[in-house]
Amino acid sequence: WEGEFFPNVSTIKYEGPSSRNPLAYRWYNAEQVILGKKMKDWLRFSVAFWHSFRGDGGDPFGSPTRRWPWDDGTNSLEMAKIRMRANFEFLEKLGVEYWCFHDRDIAPEGATLQESNRNLDKLVALAKRLQEGTNIRPLWGTAQLFKHPRYMHGAATSPDVKVFAYAAAQVKKTMEVTHELGGENYVFWGGREGYQTLLNTDMKKELDHMGSFLKAAAAWKKKIGFEGTLLLEPKPQEPTKHQYDWDAATTISFLQKYGLLGDFKLNIECNHATLAGHSCVHELEVARINGVLGNIDANTGDAQTGWDTDQFLTNTEEATLIMLTVIKNGGLAPGGFNFDAKLRRESIDVEDLFIAHILGMDTLARGLVNAAKLYEDGVLSNLVNSRYGSFDSEIGAQIEAGTADFETLEKYAFEWGEPAITSGKQELAEMILHSYT
Amino acid sequence: WEGEFFPNVSTIKYEGPSSRNPLAYRWYNAEQVILGKKMKDWLRFSVAFWHSFRGDGGDPFGSPTRRWPWDDGTNSLEMAKIRMRANFEFLEKLGVEYWCFHDRDIAPEGATLQESNRNLDKLVALAKRLQEGTNIRPLWGTAQLFKHPRYMHGAATSPDVKVFAYAAAQVKKTMEVTHELGGENYVFWGGREGYQTLLNTDMKKELDHMGSFLKAAAAWKKKIGFEGTLLLEPKPQEPTKHQYDWDAATTISFLQKYGLLGDFKLNIECNHATLAGHSCVHELEVARINGVLGNIDANTGDAQTGWDTDQFLTNTEEATLIMLTVIKNGGLAPGGFNFDAKLRRESIDVEDLFIAHILGMDTLARGLVNAAKLYEDGVLSNLVNSRYGSFDSEIGAQIEAGTADFETLEKYAFEWGEPAITSGKQELAEMILHSYT
Amino acid sequence: WEGEFFPNVSTIKYEGPSSRNPLAYRWYNAEQVILGKKMKDWLRFSVAFWHSFRGDGGDPFGSPTRRWPWDDGTNSLEMAKIRMRANFEFLEKLGVEYWCFHDRDIAPEGATLQESNRNLDKLVALAKRLQEGTNIRPLWGTAQLFKHPRYMHGAATSPDVKVFAYAAAQVKKTMEVTHELGGENYVFWGGREGYQTLLNTDMKKELDHMGSFLKAAAAWKKKIGFEGTLLLEPKPQEPTKHQYDWDAATTISFLQKYGLLGDFKLNIECNHATLAGHSCVHELEVARINGVLGNIDANTGDAQTGWDTDQFLTNTEEATLIMLTVIKNGGLAPGGFNFDAKLRRESIDVEDLFIAHILGMDTLARGLVNAAKLYEDGVLSNLVNSRYGSFDSEIGAQIEAGTADFETLEKYAFEWGEPAITSGKQELAEMILHSYT
Amino acid sequence: WEGEFFPNVSTIKYEGPSSRNPLAYRWYNAEQVILGKKMKDWLRFSVAFWHSFRGDGGDPFGSPTRRWPWDDGTNSLEMAKIRMRANFEFLEKLGVEYWCFHDRDIAPEGATLQESNRNLDKLVALAKRLQEGTNIRPLWGTAQLFKHPRYMHGAATSPDVKVFAYAAAQVKKTMEVTHELGGENYVFWGGREGYQTLLNTDMKKELDHMGSFLKAAAAWKKKIGFEGTLLLEPKPQEPTKHQYDWDAATTISFLQKYGLLGDFKLNIECNHATLAGHSCVHELEVARINGVLGNIDANTGDAQTGWDTDQFLTNTEEATLIMLTVIKNGGLAPGGFNFDAKLRRESIDVEDLFIAHILGMDTLARGLVNAAKLYEDGVLSNLVNSRYGSFDSEIGAQIEAGTADFETLEKYAFEWGEPAITSGKQELAEMILHSYT
Repeated sequence: WEGEFFPNVSTIKYEGPSSRNPLAYRWYNAEQVILGKKMKDWLRFSVAFWHSFRGDGGDPFGSPTRRWPWDDGTNSLEMAKIRMRANFEFLEKLGVEYWCFHDRDIAPEGATLQESNRNLDKLVALAKRLQEGTNIRPLWGTAQLFKHPRYMHGAATSPDVKVFAYAAAQVKKTMEVTHELGGENYVFWGGREGYQTLLNTDMKKELDHMGSFLKAAAAWKKKIGFEGTLLLEPKPQEPTKHQYDWDAATTISFLQKYGLLGDFKLNIECNHATLAGHSCVHELEVARINGVLGNIDANTGDAQTGWDTDQFLTNTEEATLIMLTVIKNGGLAPGGFNFDAKLRRESIDVEDLFIAHILGMDTLARGLVNAAKLYEDGVLSNLVNSRYGSFDSEIGAQIEAGTADFETLEKYAFEWGEPAITSGKQELAEMILHSYT
Repeated sequence: WEGEFFPNVSTIKYEGPSSRNPLAYRWYNAEQVILGKKMKDWLRFSVAFWHSFRGDGGDPFGSPTRRWPWDDGTNSLEMAKIRMRANFEFLEKLGVEYWCFHDRDIAPEGATLQESNRNLDKLVALAKRLQEGTNIRPLWGTAQLFKHPRYMHGAATSPDVKVFAYAAAQVKKTMEVTHELGGENYVFWGGREGYQTLLNTDMKKELDHMGSFLKAAAAWKKKIGFEGTLLLEPKPQEPTKHQYDWDAATTISFLQKYGLLGDFKLNIECNHATLAGHSCVHELEVARINGVLGNIDANTGDAQTGWDTDQFLTNTEEATLIMLTVIKNGGLAPGGFNFDAKLRRESIDVEDLFIAHILGMDTLARGLVNAAKLYEDGVLSNLVNSRYGSFDSEIGAQIEAGTADFETLEKYAFEWGEPAITSGKQELAEMILHSYT
Repeated sequence: WEGEFFPNVSTIKYEGPSSRNPLAYRWYNAEQVILGKKMKDWLRFSVAFWHSFRGDGGDPFGSPTRRWPWDDGTNSLEMAKIRMRANFEFLEKLGVEYWCFHDRDIAPEGATLQESNRNLDKLVALAKRLQEGTNIRPLWGTAQLFKHPRYMHGAATSPDVKVFAYAAAQVKKTMEVTHELGGENYVFWGGREGYQTLLNTDMKKELDHMGSFLKAAAAWKKKIGFEGTLLLEPKPQEPTKHQYDWDAATTISFLQKYGLLGDFKLNIECNHATLAGHSCVHELEVARINGVLGNIDANTGDAQTGWDTDQFLTNTEEATLIMLTVIKNGGLAPGGFNFDAKLRRESIDVEDLFIAHILGMDTLARGLVNAAKLYEDGVLSNLVNSRYGSFDSEIGAQIEAGTADFETLEKYAFEWGEPAITSGKQELAEMILHSYT
Repeated sequence: WEGEFFPNVSTIKYEGPSSRNPLAYRWYNAEQVILGKKMKDWLRFSVAFWHSFRGDGGDPFGSPTRRWPWDDGTNSLEMAKIRMRANFEFLEKLGVEYWCFHDRDIAPEGATLQESNRNLDKLVALAKRLQEGTNIRPLWGTAQLFKHPRYMHGAATSPDVKVFAYAAAQVKKTMEVTHELGGENYVFWGGREGYQTLLNTDMKKELDHMGSFLKAAAAWKKKIGFEGTLLLEPKPQEPTKHQYDWDAATTISFLQKYGLLGDFKLNIECNHATLAGHSCVHELEVARINGVLGNIDANTGDAQTGWDTDQFLTNTEEATLIMLTVIKNGGLAPGGFNFDAKLRRESIDVEDLFIAHILGMDTLARGLVNAAKLYEDGVLSNLVNSRYGSFDSEIGAQIEAGTADFETLEKYAFEWGEPAITSGKQELAEMILHSYT
């Protein structure tokens, strides 16, 4: 493939909210300063290589529908290089400085692990060269431990020790190349770390193995001097019936049990949150208040659909709440917002790839603008803080210090009598949110 | 109320599987020995006072439908005593030795906390007298911290310190009376420990308060010499939008964070499990392998319904799987099976109360018989164990000891080459289960 | 109760989007003309008597939390009259011209049906007097056929013929008084028309009875000269496990089967839509394209909650889509938007009742403004229409006329060869929507 | 491929419930007479060609895991013939007389429609030859209108008239070959007849087109003298966000609207039922009481999973209820039970294919044995019938005839006074079911 990949698309520019140009930003203005930081530094957007350059529109009931003009559909090394070049042109035209990848997305699996590694090295060398002279680098890399049949029973939780070892070797290598490319994080999505039925599963053994695997991963990171964050990505189910990293709380529970809490943070995906029965913001907040909010996979699901649809986020209110949490977290760096979001099966134009990313970026940028105003004005946080005002007292302090015993508390209860009840003001809080979005 | 409460029902007897008598046991044979223990010691059934003697069939769209013949519908002390006597006649006729209660179910709330405590003392004295000369005692007691408006924003997680103190006083007292009655456990169901909207909530503060509350509860237990188990009961939502004790993993995560893991176990309710998106057995197994399976609230939900229906369990296969976990756990004692299950709103005959409990007991007894055979024959456990056979090796042992590093594992991976894949045998495992049920 | 009910609240005024006054409209400007019609005529807002004046915050796990200052909590005739007066003051201060009621909300159930009817007459007389000199009238009335224990097995679908007759008498009377008050519609929500278990149910018989009941209702309407629309309100479940009017399509199927399609339209409730697995707009569109969109119960559910939460609508995008359907429908008259929405259990201030309604009204008004622009600009409808352009052809016309046979179609297929595929442009459509909201 | 396909498996025999042989029937005894009909005539089992001979274990996150020994993974004509021969050996060894197919499963898609038709003819000729001298024939055939990209926006509901024509030609041909092979039914599963977003969809137009398409199909059936039943197969969603044949009631509504109710029946799939929020038995009963229960796709979903898992049915209670409906329906002929069920991705042994089908067949056979006893003893039906006894009265008859008016009913209501309430006896009904399973 010679020449440009997207000859009909120029660099995407900011044109402001009133623009009706689908190939322009209406809200995302990279250099605009919000609460003392540039938009691009709050948002740290990343393109997911797999969705954008390997996604073909196939689904469980249908063949692929989409093939980019430069793509011959093969898994050759040559084709891999072409795709990598397309990725960089896309990033540049979009004005995005991060990308994310699985080892097997960017380079073909070889006949042996050794050959796979060599293939990977070639693509990494190309990517490194393409990165030169730009600000572009990986937000994170990850090993694909779910697609190949060898991983059908899991990787770190496979009942076969050979598969465990294979997976370890694959993560080892992928962490090395992520480091080499200047990647800022490394992600573990345990796509098949779970079970299909408890009838054939020893859950305790599998979790112990997973703990051991991640311990070795954390040690390897130190050994090679990689300073990026290691991230676990919760998802409740799909492809397996039950995935061990079900949601943020479950994953934190696992990290605590296996003594890994200091070594890992979480990559929260909104569509995974809702599949687990939570709002996206709930999952973000659980991660934030436990000090493990590391990265956001920015997408959304269909509200009525029971599987992962990985759609681009479009809801302004949701984006506002997400950005409010990010502001409270002081940003996400070294993490960011990765668009783990894919075009609909029926969207087959090259232009659609731009439109979808612009829509996702604009939605979050608009959310940031709203959230910053909400944060600065403090109307909502005042409402919250005043609700807990009674804990700003001596006994409140003892409670928060964990020193208030039942006898003391009973004495107060007898003394105070029946507490008066006060409104929770939910509708007022909703009105405030509505007036800022 | 004079005389018998259930004059038309005699003591329920075991008549065997072919019986068509709705007022007889077909599977539950209390003294029958299974795997070296009596059925009644495996099952340790308990009647829930609130459902059986305070349930009135009311629902969010309808008035009460049911009033037992002896009940005048008031919340007087006299009526409370009559209900307690009915409870004991019911337990005796059913042949069940445990009962569970909330403080406010058995005794009326007074004008002050002090008066409520005095009311409670009177009912406890009566219950103690009725227990004399029987083997009957509470499986557990618990404080009702969700019904009164003062708890509308939570109890331990209320934003009002006065409510926190009130709740502490109530738990203090209920733990004392549970102890006095010889109760074997004490349960915390955090009915409103959660939030309706994150917009008005400081989740971190609320969780910190809950941690402090439970720490004080554990200390109080030691102080009064109560040796029963303290149990947390996970539920994902309802009445609140999000309850902090969402599921077993979340609750374990909380206990770990606040240093309470040695002090608490879990009370798993099947209907709560399915509302959280898990099978009942999943939740039981998560609790079991973390060493915190303390008690089971034996009920089931409607498979298509998004709220707690608290139905009596009737599915043989599910009961078999539940009992298999209980066998692996070596039983539940000092916990047991509490029927946190209620008659349908439309079931208004006294006879229905017996039928429902007999059905629930028979289902679990049948499950026990099946599970014991499955366990003894070992067909299913052999299938499971052989799947993990490759870990019975040197490197497997290193992995399980947490000492296998990535370099060693990579060496093995290179050496072993592509692992062969083997069938997971799920259908065979299902066939085995089917042939034992 | 003497004097004003809401002494601290003046008539709510429009202050525009930048207002931060919670007791003012930011979007709802009743007299503002949109697409040739006043906002108030597009929206035809109605207050639900039951939620606003009988709702007490009780839930399945908790006692009532809320009692308005004028309410003594009794079900006396005197109290009923006070509540009715409060209703009218609320309507006037809010600037809303419609209200909706159940017979038993506004007047107490008597010892006999005859007495209940007399009670109802008294309250109707009062309401009629209060309506005088105002533009206020009922959007609709309805009979409460789900709360009293006699209806525990259903009303028109009760297995007891006496209950069927009782329900008929109650509907007869309620339709009469709705007519007398100048009500513009009459609603049937089949709260317990369904089953709890198929094991004890003859579904065919119950549906036949329901058909017969509604046939008699339609006849009665004609007999008394009531010209309002009869409306069925679909809901999938709750309180029953399965409600016969599951969703719009199911209800239409029922109407067709029993020959009632010309006599009834639908009252679509958004929260019911999502509980049935549909988006609100889907249900509205199903009703619209079948010519039976009669009224909207404007509320929303919690996206993660499996029961009816009846919250006030706050999402701008959803409101925009709802209003787009309403515009396509040429409005809803004689139907309108009834706020079948309730304050959260924890919202106990009189002020909250205003805030919640203002929020709901502003959300829909804002949706109307957005939808009107979207409709006028035609960007989205052009995208849709162009997708179907190929049917503007001879064979397309034959297909739409139902005259194209398989042989003709096969001939075309052979001739045309493989069709080219074109993008569905979903992300572009979402971007358009986003840029109008 | 020469010789046997399953050399290690002999014809599966009935060995009775106590057998532990996974390759024997424990309940299915083909010639055993139940309620006057042979088991095989009640059950009319069918193997689904696509799952058994084209299923490869691939899922949205993973490559294929399974390739049968005789399969080279290509889509050649030669390979197609080998697969067809394997199918017949499988049917014979299993002792099953029906099979189901899509046109494109059994024969490769050609470069043109004409070539595809020629390919199909070759495989049909082979199947016909293999059927000779056996009782084997298709339970039904169907056209695959969802896999090829041309159908990505639907087939009969595609916005492109060329796709509509192509689909018509494909159905025309598939109906012809089904007829030629002696198929007893023809099925329409509208895999992509629905929408992904209402934003780009004209739902009314699409439904009109679908009505026209099916009208032409019914005409074609008559024209070619095919006497099999035409069946629509409801499914709520997946692959699309909303499928027009959402559930039984929705599909019936569609058939009524377009005047097709006499020409079509339904093919109910259990997993589709639960995805729509219904129990399988609910969907079967809706079809039965509307006279359109034509065929059952016998499978089950995972109770906690929000997508189609197509598992083999294993639950005895569910099978008992399914068979009770089939008995009430007088059987399913000319329909039957098609195993639209697939091996788990991880089940890769040839033996697993037998085990899975045996398990599914045994589960339904056991259900039949239970249901027949339940039906004959009449305990449950007596309970149901007695509940509706009050309608065996003059006014009851008028109601059921649709002649009871509101004035008459009101007169009765006044006369009868308050109806007594009686228990719904749900727990008793559940106990009865439990004692028969």
